[in-house]
Amino acid sequence: MKNRVITISREFGSGGRTIGRRTAEELGIPCYDNELLLKIAEESGFKENYIRDAGEYAPGGFLSNIFSHQGAGPNNADYLWSVQYRIITELAEKEPCVIVGRCADYILKDKADCLRVFIHADMAFRAERIVNVYGEREQSPEQRIREKDKRRAAYHRFYTDMKWGRAQNYDITLNSGTLGIDRCVNIIKELY
Amino acid sequence: MKNRVITISREFGSGGRTIGRRTAEELGIPCYDNELLLKIAEESGFKENYIRDAGEYAPGGFLSNIFSHQGAGPNNADYLWSVQYRIITELAEKEPCVIVGRCADYILKDKADCLRVFIHADMAFRAERIVNVYGEREQSPEQRIREKDKRRAAYHRFYTDMKWGRAQNYDITLNSGTLGIDRCVNIIKELY
Repeated sequence: MKNRVITISREFGSGGRTIGRRTAEELGIPCYDNELLLKIAEESGFKENYIRDAGEYAPGGFLSNIFSHQGAGPNNADYLWSVQYRIITELAEKEPCVIVGRCADYILKDKADCLRVFIHADMAFRAERIVNVYGEREQSPEQRIREKDKRRAAYHRFYTDMKWGRAQNYDITLNSGTLGIDRCVNIIKELY
Repeated sequence: MKNRVITISREFGSGGRTIGRRTAEELGIPCYDNELLLKIAEESGFKENYIRDAGEYAPGGFLSNIFSHQGAGPNNADYLWSVQYRIITELAEKEPCVIVGRCADYILKDKADCLRVFIHADMAFRAERIVNVYGEREQSPEQRIREKDKRRAAYHRFYTDMKWGRAQNYDITLNSGTLGIDRCVNIIKELY
């Protein structure tokens, strides 16, 4: 029987990672986000920082141009994708869990019994939240959000050919700004 | 204080209307869908059937070309929109309620304390459901669904300039095919 897995896609700053962690904690199952990143790093031999960035750049963008050979054969981003694909599949086959980001919804679509969740919120909520959680930066929070979202959407589109944030790709989408983090956790927990 | 109103947008055949009715019943508040249609019909002097169709055609399409003057001034579709706009506003100002379809989410965005819901499901679920609920027709259920969805999306886009089915336009979107009608009703009820 396939394992029950919660996959969470999320807009930057919407609290998707917090929701994933808390849901997993309350359900007593593991949650993979940074842990997953580290596993991928170990296996692929890339540095963690590089992976974090590459995970949000679609191939053909900035990083792949700098780091990849321009000739034939898979580039770094494609190699990373294949490692990520394998690790996510193995995690989901091992036990029920929560996986945040990294196109897990797409990767697992025939491999696990997924509850596919998307978390979003309006700009004001997210701007306030990223300053609280990640601190001030030179760029305005709005600029940081727009850039991150753009990258995530492009990455998702490139590898899955599905539109990020389209309701029809998920079992449930939640506005953490209007509903609040607690209610999002409760709803996902009850559905699981 | 603004009334709490649940607005339900839905893909054809997804059970959105059933979910709206049952949620309203369990909460003890009114639900407007066909009733709303009849009210609009009474006030505008149009026949109910015409309104039902026009509600899913964006102006410039088939019906408005046949029935409207091609000169200056508002056409029938625009007139209907203004009647619908006023009626939905009045209903929401009177008391808490559920409103299914008709761009109520957009119309009420500053006029009520809305819980904006979108219901969708995959093609197989909806095809089976519309044959059960509405009976067989000459057209295949898949064709009927595709046409209805296309009209609803175009209508919504024309009057609201918002993309129908985009998660970010709602507080919650639910896949009635994977979650089931009962769970959708329960989640909306609890959020309300």
